[in-house]
Amino acid sequence: MSVSILDMSVSLDGYIADDDDYLGGDDGERLHTWADEAGASVQPSGPVRDFEAEWKAAGAVLAGRRTAELMDHWGGSHGGVPIFVPSHRPPPPAARWGYPLVTYVNDGIVSAMAQAKAAAGDRDVQVRGGLVAQQALEAGVLDEIQIHLIPVLLGRGRRLFDVLSSEIELEIVRVIDTPEATHVRYRVRR
Amino acid sequence: MSVSILDMSVSLDGYIADDDDYLGGDDGERLHTWADEAGASVQPSGPVRDFEAEWKAAGAVLAGRRTAELMDHWGGSHGGVPIFVPSHRPPPPAARWGYPLVTYVNDGIVSAMAQAKAAAGDRDVQVRGGLVAQQALEAGVLDEIQIHLIPVLLGRGRRLFDVLSSEIELEIVRVIDTPEATHVRYRVRR
Repeated sequence: MSVSILDMSVSLDGYIADDDDYLGGDDGERLHTWADEAGASVQPSGPVRDFEAEWKAAGAVLAGRRTAELMDHWGGSHGGVPIFVPSHRPPPPAARWGYPLVTYVNDGIVSAMAQAKAAAGDRDVQVRGGLVAQQALEAGVLDEIQIHLIPVLLGRGRRLFDVLSSEIELEIVRVIDTPEATHVRYRVRR
Repeated sequence: MSVSILDMSVSLDGYIADDDDYLGGDDGERLHTWADEAGASVQPSGPVRDFEAEWKAAGAVLAGRRTAELMDHWGGSHGGVPIFVPSHRPPPPAARWGYPLVTYVNDGIVSAMAQAKAAAGDRDVQVRGGLVAQQALEAGVLDEIQIHLIPVLLGRGRRLFDVLSSEIELEIVRVIDTPEATHVRYRVRR
């Protein structure tokens, strides 16, 4: 059965990036050095290898529009898998004409996730972008959250999630302890 | 050597309590059920027993004024150990006359921590209160942070730390994985 999952690196004080650019910037970069450091050796460390395998195992990607456009739709496909972008505005030209694997969905997050899961078959749907992840979470269509908790206090920046309409309980599925980060996988309780 | 440590339960989205009361309230209570649940059996689970032992091993407490007053100075001592409260205002009457183990320090957080460590001897100094913990952190006198990461998204509330003046690197010292929480102990890098 396909599982929708958000994979996110978070600072101990709950930030996913700096104020200006939730995909990068200096603070954003700090949150992603764990994969570089752990993967620096010719043979990446076990956990990083496992996470790379999980990322590559996705059968579809659900991406927020801002993320998709900032990443230029990953060149038209996300490692060969289709990309679904929920948006009420018309898709940009590149997505309309140049990217057959990119589908803009204008009837909401639930429909977009349903289409992504149908395309993914038995494989996972990777959710890309904090805002769309929150929409999926609050719409009840986000199944799991893989957090890489980074041992740093950024002190400022963009939150993992903005204010939520209600408290959401999680279940700890797996904890992997490395020097670079504490990797915790959660299942969203419904 | 005495170590100053902040012990805090935090939601996955970085909150330590609800907006109204950073010592409790509904959200705050949710963040502390892990000890109750894990300790509900006649024999508390190993981790909770260990944490209780660490809490009781403190040789002194450094408490924020708001926390100390809200808790009525824990009745005059924190499990028998002295309490130090950094504050530029005069101490309240109870602390002046009724609580010989409570010391108000009016010349800053660094002096208050020095006095607390002197009183603690070889034992730890437990830091109580998010605001004083941040002052200690930014003044360079907070040594370790014990986080109990709770599998819940509160969606709103008080942050672990308010905006910090600079990024602060941590070192992961210990990870304890339980169903109720992921317990991570950090050393503050200097």
